Amino acid sequence: MPGSAVTYAFLGPEGTFTEAALMQVPDAAQATRIPASNVNAALDLVRDGAADAAMVPIENSVEGGVTATLDAIANGQELRIIREVLVPISFVLAAPPGVELADVRRVSTHGHAWAQCRLWMDKNIPAAEYVPGSSTAASAMGLLGEDCHYDAAICAPLVAREQPGLSVLAENIGDNPGAVTRFILVSRPGRLPERTGADKTTVVVPLPEDRPGALMEILDQFASRGVNLSRIESRPTGQYLGHYFFSIDADGHAGDARVADALAGLHRISPNTRFLGSYPRADMQETAVESHTSDEAFTAAKSWVASILQPGSSPAENVSAASPTA
Amino acid sequence: MPGSAVTYAFLGPEGTFTEAALMQVPDAAQATRIPASNVNAALDLVRDGAADAAMVPIENSVEGGVTATLDAIANGQELRIIREVLVPISFVLAAPPGVELADVRRVSTHGHAWAQCRLWMDKNIPAAEYVPGSSTAASAMGLLGEDCHYDAAICAPLVAREQPGLSVLAENIGDNPGAVTRFILVSRPGRLPERTGADKTTVVVPLPEDRPGALMEILDQFASRGVNLSRIESRPTGQYLGHYFFSIDADGHAGDARVADALAGLHRISPNTRFLGSYPRADMQETAVESHTSDEAFTAAKSWVASILQPGSSPAENVSAASPTA
Amino acid sequence: MPGSAVTYAFLGPEGTFTEAALMQVPDAAQATRIPASNVNAALDLVRDGAADAAMVPIENSVEGGVTATLDAIANGQELRIIREVLVPISFVLAAPPGVELADVRRVSTHGHAWAQCRLWMDKNIPAAEYVPGSSTAASAMGLLGEDCHYDAAICAPLVAREQPGLSVLAENIGDNPGAVTRFILVSRPGRLPERTGADKTTVVVPLPEDRPGALMEILDQFASRGVNLSRIESRPTGQYLGHYFFSIDADGHAGDARVADALAGLHRISPNTRFLGSYPRADMQETAVESHTSDEAFTAAKSWVASILQPGSSPAENVSAASPTA
Amino acid sequence: MPGSAVTYAFLGPEGTFTEAALMQVPDAAQATRIPASNVNAALDLVRDGAADAAMVPIENSVEGGVTATLDAIANGQELRIIREVLVPISFVLAAPPGVELADVRRVSTHGHAWAQCRLWMDKNIPAAEYVPGSSTAASAMGLLGEDCHYDAAICAPLVAREQPGLSVLAENIGDNPGAVTRFILVSRPGRLPERTGADKTTVVVPLPEDRPGALMEILDQFASRGVNLSRIESRPTGQYLGHYFFSIDADGHAGDARVADALAGLHRISPNTRFLGSYPRADMQETAVESHTSDEAFTAAKSWVASILQPGSSPAENVSAASPTA
Repeated sequence: MPGSAVTYAFLGPEGTFTEAALMQVPDAAQATRIPASNVNAALDLVRDGAADAAMVPIENSVEGGVTATLDAIANGQELRIIREVLVPISFVLAAPPGVELADVRRVSTHGHAWAQCRLWMDKNIPAAEYVPGSSTAASAMGLLGEDCHYDAAICAPLVAREQPGLSVLAENIGDNPGAVTRFILVSRPGRLPERTGADKTTVVVPLPEDRPGALMEILDQFASRGVNLSRIESRPTGQYLGHYFFSIDADGHAGDARVADALAGLHRISPNTRFLGSYPRADMQETAVESHTSDEAFTAAKSWVASILQPGSSPAENVSAASPTA
Repeated sequence: MPGSAVTYAFLGPEGTFTEAALMQVPDAAQATRIPASNVNAALDLVRDGAADAAMVPIENSVEGGVTATLDAIANGQELRIIREVLVPISFVLAAPPGVELADVRRVSTHGHAWAQCRLWMDKNIPAAEYVPGSSTAASAMGLLGEDCHYDAAICAPLVAREQPGLSVLAENIGDNPGAVTRFILVSRPGRLPERTGADKTTVVVPLPEDRPGALMEILDQFASRGVNLSRIESRPTGQYLGHYFFSIDADGHAGDARVADALAGLHRISPNTRFLGSYPRADMQETAVESHTSDEAFTAAKSWVASILQPGSSPAENVSAASPTA
Repeated sequence: MPGSAVTYAFLGPEGTFTEAALMQVPDAAQATRIPASNVNAALDLVRDGAADAAMVPIENSVEGGVTATLDAIANGQELRIIREVLVPISFVLAAPPGVELADVRRVSTHGHAWAQCRLWMDKNIPAAEYVPGSSTAASAMGLLGEDCHYDAAICAPLVAREQPGLSVLAENIGDNPGAVTRFILVSRPGRLPERTGADKTTVVVPLPEDRPGALMEILDQFASRGVNLSRIESRPTGQYLGHYFFSIDADGHAGDARVADALAGLHRISPNTRFLGSYPRADMQETAVESHTSDEAFTAAKSWVASILQPGSSPAENVSAASPTA
Repeated sequence: MPGSAVTYAFLGPEGTFTEAALMQVPDAAQATRIPASNVNAALDLVRDGAADAAMVPIENSVEGGVTATLDAIANGQELRIIREVLVPISFVLAAPPGVELADVRRVSTHGHAWAQCRLWMDKNIPAAEYVPGSSTAASAMGLLGEDCHYDAAICAPLVAREQPGLSVLAENIGDNPGAVTRFILVSRPGRLPERTGADKTTVVVPLPEDRPGALMEILDQFASRGVNLSRIESRPTGQYLGHYFFSIDADGHAGDARVADALAGLHRISPNTRFLGSYPRADMQETAVESHTSDEAFTAAKSWVASILQPGSSPAENVSAASPTA
């Protein structure tokens, strides 16, 4: 179906956990999928219109926020997160057929993966030297090259299993068996995904000034409306030390009155606040809402204030209230 | 001009400080003025339509809030404060002609006046016995009666000077020379007095629950919008010990976006919050407004949120964001 | 037993609810009891050493705080509340024998009692005129005088029943059947009453400045230590309009670490904060304490900070940390 | 001077910015300096006693917090930061003599350095391929190896200039000319560096629960004592998504009463709070202290509370305050 086909970018190369995340999107299997060499490149494909959306990692339960992504979506032309995907992370040690564990002297992988397999490496092949790779998949594929200067790679099970020429020396070598990475699907701004009652809203809020309490004022915009935060990260603006913005995930959807009200409060305090989207939670856990922060409570409050400002009648008109200095 | 004439009620009798307050209202001299025997009676004349507005005392710089007024406007059919008036309070000791200070053995006045002249009495006629009166003017007028059982009265200078049959034994006998009483002019709900930039808003907020922090949540509705409070008083609801409502004066007008937003917040937390009016400050002191709580900041924030919720275009429509469980 | 006998002052005259409150104190029946003509006089008897303690009313569930008491204990030589007593308030209409309800044209009582019986009066003898009295008991006793210029008095059941020459025309004429008045027993500063786990602490805190949030800072001293407030009242300092102090009852005892810590915080923000005592609650309702505000949590925190400031050993001594500008 | 010599570890290899930071420590030139292959290894040398202190990077003005360091000092055996050092960061492009810019096809460096030179690279040698290196110095030194599979390296000016066999192709190629990295000198716990009035205190605070407002409670411990924060970063605990600790730099020294009080508050809320040291600020900017959070204010408050709890005399002893249920 030319013309109607969807195109997705993702942080490549093929075989990474990011591609696994993309494949969880219902129509991804039928879509055109473009691997990008880095997060910025993936997002630029969206910004340029070459892709409809891009899948990129944003947070790892062990390593923390993916700073490249946090910074890339916080700057440049505006984008919107429209979906999140959780992928359990497990690592294998892959090598060309015939290589035994005892033969492994140099191991390549991405820095984050290396950090997550340190205990296993220290215990099983403590003498192994680390060779940095630009991704787990790149390190794995590098083993197939002629002049490869390392013996094994730490990579996703998918790559090792599907790639002819690689065999698995050890499985589940990650130090944290429950490790999960969260990915986001990012598009150009448009109609927001529908409210589901189990949503998240992501914003980027520059800290207005370096004064005591500025961060508390920001957090109070959420707390005073009963909006819980599931993630908060500080990132440098890059201008000078101590100048930050905050990347925040809040429970709820911009279409929820309490979230909309909190967004308005943020904009007043920090006018460069950037809205990055409202989208369904991957865990589909419904947000609990107290009665005084429900849509009904906001609507009732708005009506009440309107009735004060524009009363139906004016029986007091002939009283000289409005001319105190007359 | 029959038909168009304004009618004012006031806490009587004639000759009290309340009448002096009423006379500060521009058209009061030409208006019909009805003295009422107590605050509730004065307000009921307004509620019933027999008067257009009523002048009653609400706060004394020495004695504090006038609880009768605070409670009366907080309950019953809704009313609106449309003006405030400040009257400096000074007291005289009045007696029938011929009575000397040394002759005075029993002194009548209202309890509040007695409290404000204690030091002078203790110093000048320490043996004098107190005879409670229902108002300063009533005590003064009582001296003219045949069977008066006291010798002198503490009252306003106006009464003592204008009433034949009374002479002034001593002037300025109040212990606090700067004493001021604040009065309010109260009408039925109607069009609010115009914004002047130097306004006050009065609300009554029942404390939602007896929990730690409930009062702080209420105060935070003002603080988080940069709205200063000039008065806060707790009053019992009368239901049981420890059950309160708060009577609050805030700087600004309900037509100011930050005040309207605070009102909406109060209504959500405490749905029985009662709005008692926005009106010009007697001291005409302008309210300072920080840029992030200006009307402009609120308007900009509202527009921004609207642009998020209803974007002009929907370029991301063919991406399957809205069906995470499909 | 001369020398060992206790002397109590109380707000008189005899037969008031205050005396009833005093009689709830275990040794009051055997003690010398001195009625005082007003709250200040009662407290001065304690300050002068003429009495060991004084019983005075502080709060009525219908009328609110007793401002005379709130102001009297907030100023002058320091005093301590050592006990609180609750007395249910009910009123009777008393008159000399032979007087029928239909005969009553003028009724005397204290202003607060009059306010609490308004509905009954309006319904049963709407034409009755109010004659102010200095206390309910004084009005009742006045009926026995020769030249009494009123026909009946509203007073406590006790007086009407025990005083020969008075009969009860109507009982339970108060508008609020659950009305309660709270009384406090006040002594000179000394050893605090023992902690019981069901205590109250009373303080008087002058508002440091007229700035947005000053009251919130004060309240936060309690909230941030999980200390609930059972009463808060603003009172004018008498200096000028808008200058307040707050009279506050907090759950807990100054011997509780969280309360002591809150007191220290108050003293820093408002150095003229006055401590008015820690004493058992009349209702003996135990204070719930969260684990992080328990005495144990405070002790553990203090030890931890001490271990930081005075470590047992100094292994890093030969590192030039302390001379950054050398 | 055997025995008295100081030994410093640092994140190696030699020639990195970390070594430049270490050389700012007064006695570093005379000390034994041990390069470590990663942050954990450097800190373990201190924990094991093999080094007296270790210099490691903690924050970059462009890239943000150094997560390896943040995590390493937050876990394991306790350590103390005793000094901070700021180093301006500038990059050069280095290559073996004879290589021209036009010849460069593959460039190696550390990922963070690559990120900071992206704009320059895109503009000047857009076709260059990135080869990950474990450090800027390692990439530079790799150029001297026989089988080097890249043509140039991005590294610190120091390395390129001092190392025979390397020449500089381009200077100041960093995208952000004001880039600064902050380093910390870390020792075992011991006597804290002296107070200078221009100090910092670093703590690690696990978020006690995933509840609305938990982070605000933590921040309030600082704000309510007037302690400003210069850095706050969230880090995953690694247990599961959404479980964080916060790494915080606060103005002031643990020996300042307001900081000690804030630490105690943190310990109560989050008992696993870890103190990581108080040390002079590199910029020597003095901390402004409001009068109500000064040491004097804390001392006065403490004395006041002590005087309440242990009064000199007990004049009220014979009053039965302590036996309310008797």
